[in-house]
Amino acid sequence: MPVTIALIPVTGMPEISPGSDLAGLIAEHADLVDGDVIVVTQKVVSKAEGRLVPLDPTDALARDALIEKESVRILRRRGDLMMTETTHGFVCANAGVDLSNVEYGRAALLPVDADRSARRIRDGLKGRAGVSVGVIVSDTFGRTWRRGLTDVAIGTAGVAAVVDLRGTTDALGRELAVTEVCVADELAGAAELVMGKSSGIPVAVIRGVDPAWLRESSVREEIVRPYQEDLFR
Amino acid sequence: MPVTIALIPVTGMPEISPGSDLAGLIAEHADLVDGDVIVVTQKVVSKAEGRLVPLDPTDALARDALIEKESVRILRRRGDLMMTETTHGFVCANAGVDLSNVEYGRAALLPVDADRSARRIRDGLKGRAGVSVGVIVSDTFGRTWRRGLTDVAIGTAGVAAVVDLRGTTDALGRELAVTEVCVADELAGAAELVMGKSSGIPVAVIRGVDPAWLRESSVREEIVRPYQEDLFR
Repeated sequence: MPVTIALIPVTGMPEISPGSDLAGLIAEHADLVDGDVIVVTQKVVSKAEGRLVPLDPTDALARDALIEKESVRILRRRGDLMMTETTHGFVCANAGVDLSNVEYGRAALLPVDADRSARRIRDGLKGRAGVSVGVIVSDTFGRTWRRGLTDVAIGTAGVAAVVDLRGTTDALGRELAVTEVCVADELAGAAELVMGKSSGIPVAVIRGVDPAWLRESSVREEIVRPYQEDLFR
Repeated sequence: MPVTIALIPVTGMPEISPGSDLAGLIAEHADLVDGDVIVVTQKVVSKAEGRLVPLDPTDALARDALIEKESVRILRRRGDLMMTETTHGFVCANAGVDLSNVEYGRAALLPVDADRSARRIRDGLKGRAGVSVGVIVSDTFGRTWRRGLTDVAIGTAGVAAVVDLRGTTDALGRELAVTEVCVADELAGAAELVMGKSSGIPVAVIRGVDPAWLRESSVREEIVRPYQEDLFR
């Protein structure tokens, strides 16, 4: 029986600020069922967690210092763009420091531990809506070699980050060469399709995902590639 | 009015071989409407286009020679893995040469021009089903810095590859920093969620995408990043 997946934007969420009860607001604005995956953009998670710092957007030196503070390594620098490795192990532009959709004079930093942020929202939704769901915290990253940005997972809870197909066979019965699929990144990107950068929808529900993917998980453990494994740094 | 997107697998497709009428088979097995985006995996496109060559899977030297022939540049090599730049400008493992889901003793190569492959399927669906749809040819690529593979677009027709939000403002009325979203890669990854590597479903329908994205497009022109722009090669 083929599975159809629905991507459903959660509309009507109020502006999020430090201390906002994200799980409570999601439960109030979305009609959730067991097995849903909820994708929440990093921006509202960072705001709810108070990860905002003052930053004069005209002060380039202060901006650079802030990015360096959030990084363990600067990989490349070109004009305004710094390609950084963050304290979490993410490789992304400007250590995720972001001024868009934030009050003027402030910058949003990445959550301290986005896996924990996802777990907290998952636990909150269980308590408030009585549902067992997966949660993904997403952010917008660039890629090497390909233009344009896509949303990816920076934190997960209750839904697989990477699904390992090793040992399974293809439709012709031969062992698969492609073995590890990063479903969390595909789910985060799918959710972006109904959120839209400019419409300010910070949450989407994905309904109909493979129940086998609903398990404990961690972006840090499953997706972040250890330094020594990487061919391009 | 929030848009909900549906991801619908196309089941019951027969095994594809050189000369198969892909558009005709999709029209027969899917109930399409104007504005749908059809995602077709590279493997069946390559098979239909006869992009199969004999390759003894136990002959490592022959395999390496074939990969080198499909490449303009070998970026890195580690064990069995070659990170290559293909003749199309894609940076991917083993120049896209693939033995899974292919008859023993044969390898599938990437389509010569996957944008053209997508246009041909789009034109075929217009002729056979009378619908105007977007078409994406997808393949499974690894990424730097992140574990696991995701499906991305290697060819598009009738649906934007990259959407440029430059000049638009965020929900607080300030100009967006994140400006170019690679919706084609997000659509390709979303489709993978209902196809599954091991279930052998080669086509999915995405219903409900933003009508503004339905325009002429090209992966080669919009997504492939020119050599001189890239910070990591």
